[in-house]
Amino acid sequence: MKVCKFGGTSVADAQQLKKVASIIREDPSRKVIVVSAPGKRFDGDTKVTDLLIDLAEAALAGQDTVPALQKVVDRYAQIAADLGLDSEIMAIIAADLAGRLSFSKENPSLFFDQLKASGEDNSAKLVAAYLTAIGLKAEYINPKNAGLVVTEAPARVQALPVSNDNLSALRYKNSISVFPGFFGFTKDGELRTFDRGGSDITGSILAAAIGADLYENFTDVDCVFAANPRIVENPAEIELMTYREMRELSYAGFAVLHDEALMPAFKASVPVCIKNTNNPGAQGTMIVAERDYSKRPVTGISADSGFSTLYVSKYLMNREVGFGRKLLQILEDENVSYEHIPSGIDNLSVIIRSHQLTPEKEFRIVSRVKTELNADDVHLNSNFSMVVLVGEGMKYTTGLAARATEAISRTGANIEMINQGSSEVSLVFGVLQKDEQKILKELYNEFFAPSYAL
Amino acid sequence: MKVCKFGGTSVADAQQLKKVASIIREDPSRKVIVVSAPGKRFDGDTKVTDLLIDLAEAALAGQDTVPALQKVVDRYAQIAADLGLDSEIMAIIAADLAGRLSFSKENPSLFFDQLKASGEDNSAKLVAAYLTAIGLKAEYINPKNAGLVVTEAPARVQALPVSNDNLSALRYKNSISVFPGFFGFTKDGELRTFDRGGSDITGSILAAAIGADLYENFTDVDCVFAANPRIVENPAEIELMTYREMRELSYAGFAVLHDEALMPAFKASVPVCIKNTNNPGAQGTMIVAERDYSKRPVTGISADSGFSTLYVSKYLMNREVGFGRKLLQILEDENVSYEHIPSGIDNLSVIIRSHQLTPEKEFRIVSRVKTELNADDVHLNSNFSMVVLVGEGMKYTTGLAARATEAISRTGANIEMINQGSSEVSLVFGVLQKDEQKILKELYNEFFAPSYAL
Repeated sequence: MKVCKFGGTSVADAQQLKKVASIIREDPSRKVIVVSAPGKRFDGDTKVTDLLIDLAEAALAGQDTVPALQKVVDRYAQIAADLGLDSEIMAIIAADLAGRLSFSKENPSLFFDQLKASGEDNSAKLVAAYLTAIGLKAEYINPKNAGLVVTEAPARVQALPVSNDNLSALRYKNSISVFPGFFGFTKDGELRTFDRGGSDITGSILAAAIGADLYENFTDVDCVFAANPRIVENPAEIELMTYREMRELSYAGFAVLHDEALMPAFKASVPVCIKNTNNPGAQGTMIVAERDYSKRPVTGISADSGFSTLYVSKYLMNREVGFGRKLLQILEDENVSYEHIPSGIDNLSVIIRSHQLTPEKEFRIVSRVKTELNADDVHLNSNFSMVVLVGEGMKYTTGLAARATEAISRTGANIEMINQGSSEVSLVFGVLQKDEQKILKELYNEFFAPSYAL
Repeated sequence: MKVCKFGGTSVADAQQLKKVASIIREDPSRKVIVVSAPGKRFDGDTKVTDLLIDLAEAALAGQDTVPALQKVVDRYAQIAADLGLDSEIMAIIAADLAGRLSFSKENPSLFFDQLKASGEDNSAKLVAAYLTAIGLKAEYINPKNAGLVVTEAPARVQALPVSNDNLSALRYKNSISVFPGFFGFTKDGELRTFDRGGSDITGSILAAAIGADLYENFTDVDCVFAANPRIVENPAEIELMTYREMRELSYAGFAVLHDEALMPAFKASVPVCIKNTNNPGAQGTMIVAERDYSKRPVTGISADSGFSTLYVSKYLMNREVGFGRKLLQILEDENVSYEHIPSGIDNLSVIIRSHQLTPEKEFRIVSRVKTELNADDVHLNSNFSMVVLVGEGMKYTTGLAARATEAISRTGANIEMINQGSSEVSLVFGVLQKDEQKILKELYNEFFAPSYAL
């Protein structure tokens, strides 16, 4: 039994949905289908989710909602018409949207969630109607009825363990279940949406719950590439990688699969396959628990910008039991998470994603570290990038760090930070943002180009 | 004005003390002299401090103290006789020791401190007597009267700021002040000894207090070497280095100068010179605030064994604000300090000096991390060594990490950890203890040998 998730571009229009239907029809083990909201059909198009946000904003502002609502309805209506569906499905979708608009606006965030989630929800209804229309036995599944129970606010939205039991029942349905991605309900029945990439998460939760043999994640790329194709020309395709490798790659710049989405599949040992709706014959990228790494120690290289460094020095810092803990407490008080803490003898740096900082937060953090920890020197620098070399068995490959640092030094760039030693599958370099791309290219050449010439 | 500290071997016997006297006589600006207790005269000899520990143990055990006391008295008496001093100084020393033996044994730790500190105290009295006997104007200074005030138990022994004011008065004495190293007194007049290497600390405190032009630290080596001479043959001599370089080198294996001893001199910007009592003509190693690093990015390479790694992994760890802080809190509860925290995406390692751990502590730490932090995997490994490359300006030298990692890979050893990025003056490699020496040798060859051949 397989769980298939289809992303926004896979359900963007009738033509795409026909591909989806043929993919489903082709393999009877594709029994649980998770769908996103209709995405962009062409460059410059607007996703349904964004139309829904406009609609929610208009409603909250007390403006006329008709034009914005019409745009949403039109997108679905166009798809339904092009698929030759009768008017029943559009009546259902229109009624659904009207119902949501009459939802209480007292808590704007809950109202937003209601509207946004309709994108996936109505997409699932539409897909189920279409599959039924073409003669497949398919059923729209309501996440509330199916029991996808999530954490209450203000906790980050996560599925509760009870969901696993509830959702396992889908295994025994003899029809194809079409499940909307992106949202669940609290114990009290309140709708909450997952983080970005939430349909990937829903698919993974379902794959784990039904104990799927495979979780197929259909996107618009043939596979995961060894490096960002917008920076490296024709990068190598990754055929097989481990969960850990995917997770470390997605951390820094690999947007193919939302990192949180891997967890349920990983914990339930369900292999994941990244496939292309537009080219389902391509074998895609398999993500599994283990792989033989003797032939290729490096699987991929990712890079991401937008990091800041909080540098703290204090003479004899390492004699002070509790110094690091107090420093992290100050960051926690500001709700700032950190990525790495490289340290010298009398100093340490905390690498932080810059989007978490504001000038006020920065000021408070720096002054608290100065006064409460009596630091000799404290400062924050931004414009750092992280370049991450990922590969199982890298740790056991002698000379790999030497090849990587040598490659970076060929670019003339300085290495601001090296972090190796905990993860067995990654080697992290902190570099100046301006050097990020040339370093990525050079590392790619070092580890992937068949022959390297200066 | 200079503060000169003479270590144990420099005051071990009459012959050595004559060298000390001639060093003092040679330069009238050498006005404050700090002395250790008489050290070993030859391989297999016993230091006075160790004789004093035997004496204290005998006294606490209620045994006959005469034999152990006699050994201590004999050492001083031999020196006094060989220096041709009259019996007065030995009467003073014997009375001092008798007085200390009658000190309350209620708190064994305070009793130990009393006895141990007598080594330096009587050494200072003897040196002052000798300098006076050869016609110099010299005076033994009692640290209690001079106002070397230290923290109360149970805090780590450190000089309080008031000491600085009190001790600055020594600047205006026209005689040579002979000051015992290693101890001070709390506000309540209780004697407390500094950590290991405590005479270096006393000298540094005095140098800062009187605003010395130079703090000369006399030992039995000509200089600080770029690597451990017991491992690397004829290592390069370091002529000039910065406080930061000395501090980072002393962290891992460079026992020349106790790391804490640099702080007062560093804060007061007093340059430090490491010199050899047995070869005072050698220029020694100067330790200053800044040096031109354009010619030689690496100053020295140190290595130290006895590190353990606490590895913790948990899926999506980096999304959990507070994870690292809670982990460090668990270590703090066990009074364990850490050295480095290399981290991957979903895992981190804490590098700890193994001597802080016991099997019980390890068990408690591992089980608390498992249960309280819900970690997926937790384990402790020992037998790691840290190899540290130290040099001002290393951070600005492109390709240095590449040269270092390349050198290590030539040895066939694996790099378990790389930590670079906070300190501007060091690059730390974690390696298996068994590989430590070959790596040190290879790194030395890479950065110091005039020409390197495989």
